[in-house]
Amino acid sequence: MKFISTPVKGMNDFLPSDMRLRQHVLGLIRETYARYGFDEIETPAMEHIENLSGKIGGENEKLIFKVMKRGRELEKGLQTGEIADSGLRYDLTVPLARYYSNNRNVLPSPLKALQIGNVWRADKPQKGRFRQFTQCDLDIIGDSSIMAEIELIAATSKMLTRIFSEVGISEFTVHINDRRILKGMAAAAGFAPETFDDVFIILDKMDKIGIDGVKESLLEKGYAPEAVEAYTAMFGKITPDLVCGEFCSQTCGSCLDEQVPANMDTIMSTVSHMVDPGVSLVFDPTLVRGMSYYTGTIFEVTIDGYNFSIAGGGRYDDMIGRFAGQSAPACGFSIGFERIVTILKDLNWKEEEGVTERRAFLVDEKAGAEKLLEVFEKATQMRAEGITVSVQPLRKNAKFQVETLEKSGYTEIRKVYADTQI
Amino acid sequence: MKFISTPVKGMNDFLPSDMRLRQHVLGLIRETYARYGFDEIETPAMEHIENLSGKIGGENEKLIFKVMKRGRELEKGLQTGEIADSGLRYDLTVPLARYYSNNRNVLPSPLKALQIGNVWRADKPQKGRFRQFTQCDLDIIGDSSIMAEIELIAATSKMLTRIFSEVGISEFTVHINDRRILKGMAAAAGFAPETFDDVFIILDKMDKIGIDGVKESLLEKGYAPEAVEAYTAMFGKITPDLVCGEFCSQTCGSCLDEQVPANMDTIMSTVSHMVDPGVSLVFDPTLVRGMSYYTGTIFEVTIDGYNFSIAGGGRYDDMIGRFAGQSAPACGFSIGFERIVTILKDLNWKEEEGVTERRAFLVDEKAGAEKLLEVFEKATQMRAEGITVSVQPLRKNAKFQVETLEKSGYTEIRKVYADTQI
Repeated sequence: MKFISTPVKGMNDFLPSDMRLRQHVLGLIRETYARYGFDEIETPAMEHIENLSGKIGGENEKLIFKVMKRGRELEKGLQTGEIADSGLRYDLTVPLARYYSNNRNVLPSPLKALQIGNVWRADKPQKGRFRQFTQCDLDIIGDSSIMAEIELIAATSKMLTRIFSEVGISEFTVHINDRRILKGMAAAAGFAPETFDDVFIILDKMDKIGIDGVKESLLEKGYAPEAVEAYTAMFGKITPDLVCGEFCSQTCGSCLDEQVPANMDTIMSTVSHMVDPGVSLVFDPTLVRGMSYYTGTIFEVTIDGYNFSIAGGGRYDDMIGRFAGQSAPACGFSIGFERIVTILKDLNWKEEEGVTERRAFLVDEKAGAEKLLEVFEKATQMRAEGITVSVQPLRKNAKFQVETLEKSGYTEIRKVYADTQI
Repeated sequence: MKFISTPVKGMNDFLPSDMRLRQHVLGLIRETYARYGFDEIETPAMEHIENLSGKIGGENEKLIFKVMKRGRELEKGLQTGEIADSGLRYDLTVPLARYYSNNRNVLPSPLKALQIGNVWRADKPQKGRFRQFTQCDLDIIGDSSIMAEIELIAATSKMLTRIFSEVGISEFTVHINDRRILKGMAAAAGFAPETFDDVFIILDKMDKIGIDGVKESLLEKGYAPEAVEAYTAMFGKITPDLVCGEFCSQTCGSCLDEQVPANMDTIMSTVSHMVDPGVSLVFDPTLVRGMSYYTGTIFEVTIDGYNFSIAGGGRYDDMIGRFAGQSAPACGFSIGFERIVTILKDLNWKEEEGVTERRAFLVDEKAGAEKLLEVFEKATQMRAEGITVSVQPLRKNAKFQVETLEKSGYTEIRKVYADTQI
């Protein structure tokens, strides 16, 4: 019989120590967002192939794991060349849009949703990139006001502070921008609306190629030198304590509804009263965010000292309506769960000592039924007191057995023989 | 753009109220088994098609959702007619065998594993039967002693008592038998070993067709009338307080190693000192359990008054070795998570009152930035005290909004206007 011991390519087996960390982080995520009034929801792993190919997914649509039709469905399908009618979800956004459309009449309004689940992408596996991984999304659907942004940023900052304080990290930066400010700046500089997305893709590389690189790339693409000059000059006006309102009036001028920077300033000043001292809120006009479905505020959180974001999101008021038929404003945050776990693991995260008391009885198999009963009665009593107790046979290689238990946080390990006093 | 709002056939969207129940039950499961020294592990949703077709899965192997190869792999595959090289797991047993084989060198020994995860079966959807559902398996690998059985039955009884006491149910019956006793009885009655599995399939229908039905079916199948007579007479010896040792000496005689009933009696008397008063342990010689991989003790838990089991399992000492190359004794329990959740829902399970205090501020959008700041500062303060607070815009249909929040356990809901005192 052929049997393959390794997991399917790009997918992971999680050891008990991995799981302790993952479940601990998931617990803090669930607990924190619950306190901000978020409700957990769940959608199936599989989605209709039509939904997965609806252009919300961007590049991820090329990475779908397709699930084959079965039996008679398959025979029927083969005639038309279609052998797959569903696929594994590549993100939690498509399922959310479908979920909201399917259940909106019985859901709270606004819906403040926490969705945690695995997603699958047939990506080239590499360090830190897997074909199955856990995503964690927060979304507020049905709230067009800035309360959505405020709740999302405040809750996410609190969640990150709680998690990372356990490894001594408390400094985060929340970068905030607005797609309308991006557009206002580009318009004021003289770019045509249909070129905006292309311009923003280049701007998005700023942190790698610098402002000169952005300038060069734009010129190479054939954009008018005056527009490029005007545009890149705007980013020269960025100062450490940038106030959105001032910056926008200097750059966008009449190309931007003045309510946009006013809201931005309210979001930032309100959130600054809600977060822990290590959290900096920065208006960052260079922040782009890849997905084209964003319509307003966009945000990204970085840990100071790491060069990638650990959470990101924004407002996407048109997308739900496009898919659900009926429009609904929406704003969301996606948490880089796997990145967070990787950082904590690299920093040798350890369960706080003393939270769980762990004891083990290693019983010699020749100890006899009466001794066994004594041990189990004692274990039952200790468990009733909230102590974790494992009863297991004493191994011949007891040294390895004891070491493994110690690594798992067992502090009192007793060997039990026929004459041991319990 | 075509968009389908309903989930893929046979799969579920879970509403916030569903999720509160599911997460609550999962929390009690995790917490209880942790206290008995079980470690959580996780395996990927996908498995190699070879592993899924290795005959552990029984009838479930006909229900595999196959995942298509991609790109070049697919082209290559099509030439040989093979277009799927992996599939979604239909249970957690096959992944466990692979996991143990892949990681045994770094796992504790014995491994006491809790695995919670979704499985997929392309079954005909019907009430209570879904194409994606959550399984919850407990297994002890590497313990050939009865300590494994004792820990598994005691922990599972405690878990069920904790969960069901919340809806007023405390009476459970753990039915215990041993495949070797089943075989000993059949052998003593005169059946040939190669007919045992067939005989047990008929015996397994006892609860539906009665002892007379079993007799009739066996005769119809052409078994020797003397064997059928002797066999069915044995089941006449079942009494309410059946002691395994006595029963086996009367029925199996020399066809059974006497250590088997001795162990059974030790398991039952030891566990009886570890469980809550409502839990009855019953030696049940009619218990069969479907899967042919069981080699020793088998068990099933029923709630008194319900006619189906909510957990079941047994010892399967040969299976891991068959797949992992190196043999390892194993014993496991599979929890009927979806059944448990369904029963609790039917009995109107409600979150215990007062565990979480929930308050909401419904803010009129015209209240202004200063009032908003006041509300959020108050909310931040309350959250720091452990209170759940949701801040959201006041809806035009405030009545529905308030009712929905009340249903979700919000007890203090305040509407906030520009002139409201916070």
